[in-house]
Amino acid sequence: MNPGFTGSPLDRADRLRNDVEAFNAALNDWRARVLGLDGLDPVVASEGGLKWISMAEVDVSVDLILLGLANGKPHFVPLVEGAGGMARSPAVWRALSMLPAEDAAIYGTARSLIDWHNNHKYCGRCGGSTKVFRAGWGRQCTACDAEHFPRTDPVVIMIAEYEGKALLGRQSAWPKGNYSALAGFLEPGESIEEAVRREIMEEAGISCGAVRYVTSQPWPFGGSQLMIACVADADGDQLTIDYNELEDAMWVTKDEARAALADAPDKRFGAPPPFAIAHTLLRRWVEM
Amino acid sequence: MNPGFTGSPLDRADRLRNDVEAFNAALNDWRARVLGLDGLDPVVASEGGLKWISMAEVDVSVDLILLGLANGKPHFVPLVEGAGGMARSPAVWRALSMLPAEDAAIYGTARSLIDWHNNHKYCGRCGGSTKVFRAGWGRQCTACDAEHFPRTDPVVIMIAEYEGKALLGRQSAWPKGNYSALAGFLEPGESIEEAVRREIMEEAGISCGAVRYVTSQPWPFGGSQLMIACVADADGDQLTIDYNELEDAMWVTKDEARAALADAPDKRFGAPPPFAIAHTLLRRWVEM
Repeated sequence: MNPGFTGSPLDRADRLRNDVEAFNAALNDWRARVLGLDGLDPVVASEGGLKWISMAEVDVSVDLILLGLANGKPHFVPLVEGAGGMARSPAVWRALSMLPAEDAAIYGTARSLIDWHNNHKYCGRCGGSTKVFRAGWGRQCTACDAEHFPRTDPVVIMIAEYEGKALLGRQSAWPKGNYSALAGFLEPGESIEEAVRREIMEEAGISCGAVRYVTSQPWPFGGSQLMIACVADADGDQLTIDYNELEDAMWVTKDEARAALADAPDKRFGAPPPFAIAHTLLRRWVEM
Repeated sequence: MNPGFTGSPLDRADRLRNDVEAFNAALNDWRARVLGLDGLDPVVASEGGLKWISMAEVDVSVDLILLGLANGKPHFVPLVEGAGGMARSPAVWRALSMLPAEDAAIYGTARSLIDWHNNHKYCGRCGGSTKVFRAGWGRQCTACDAEHFPRTDPVVIMIAEYEGKALLGRQSAWPKGNYSALAGFLEPGESIEEAVRREIMEEAGISCGAVRYVTSQPWPFGGSQLMIACVADADGDQLTIDYNELEDAMWVTKDEARAALADAPDKRFGAPPPFAIAHTLLRRWVEM
């Protein structure tokens, strides 16, 4: 199983972004498709995929971001207003459990871009207002001309492993009984391996040695995150939990993880949803 | 050999950042050390490491960023003005060839943080001016209270491999004869593996299958970058070079890479410097 939000069928067509003529031709292409949105939420079409509308149905005053090409057809998303942030409506969660993987990947890219635009209306350098350029893949300051590009924040998400058991934790806001991999933002000046060791030490008081990369996923909630999933070799299993970050943490066996992933009636804990990389990571770990 | 800019001996002491009292105590700790800088460049002390100065030598009007603790001693860097950006002075390059790895890691973190502050003096959401908070690990808008945190941009850097040969490229601005791994910014909505395949396709017209993660490194020039080094299995070796991105690209054998890394007189190409992850990647590849 591939990580969630990966596998978009769209060619990002980077070459069209700097070519104003080609971009305008794409905007005027009668085959163009525009992603239907309900606020920031996806709209699921009657056939079960994302709903696409035609250019004729779009308010002409709205900026359009070029998501890419599929079979030569340009695909856009309108730059709508929206708070974004970590808040996820129940509708998004429901939609993600229904959408084909390719459609979830397209939606994730669109949502991350919209969120970035809405949080970068002004220039960080001079405070001037910025405007869309590069087919929606950048903003330029109208005062100082500085160019700004969509950002992605790397996040490490990891299992510490000790004597065949994996360290999982839970936050109080999560559904009762659910546990997942520890995670945290990578900071300036850190490698992935250093960030993994620091986060496990900060949150659970566990020192780790070797760190093995497992897989990665883009995550479109709370901006645009790159989730980097790893397994780290723990030096011991004596927990010192940071209760500002976690409500609880515990060591689980592979059998317990299998039961959680299978949603068995006697499972010890609830697993993360399939489109979260913690799910993929746990699945890969039980197979290691 | 560890990748450059990794291995900082400082404990980042995240717990002190939200604790104003503890942070003030650190500022008033007589053992505190402050990183000496010449503009944005490092200053190499007579013993060969970074130069540290005492709190008494620092202009009281300058904000101090808490880099972390070593042996209980707080270590700071002054938030100086500076353009940062991709431009690297010859002095930085010379200093990096002399500094111990641990000191290069501390300097890299400091430089990335300074660069971030100088590019985020205004709030992207409302245009209001921002001020330093969280011991230098954030800025808060004085108008709308929005909190902003230091960003790091993930960059994929990779070798495509085909029948035992590695694909390397060169940009026209590089020293004559130097070749390195291809690289590019990861975009919103992509996994590491997807970004690797897209970049190799865009720059060299080569389609790739499996992508193997190798290692990672923070890079403090042009902001704060997370360099993610990979090897990708190429489906063929017929190059279609994007001359907007590259001046040239070529397939090299492991023997040729070894000669370049050893700086042999009859080498086919010049290798990247040891503190660049492309060097580490090439070294790991010849050992694979």
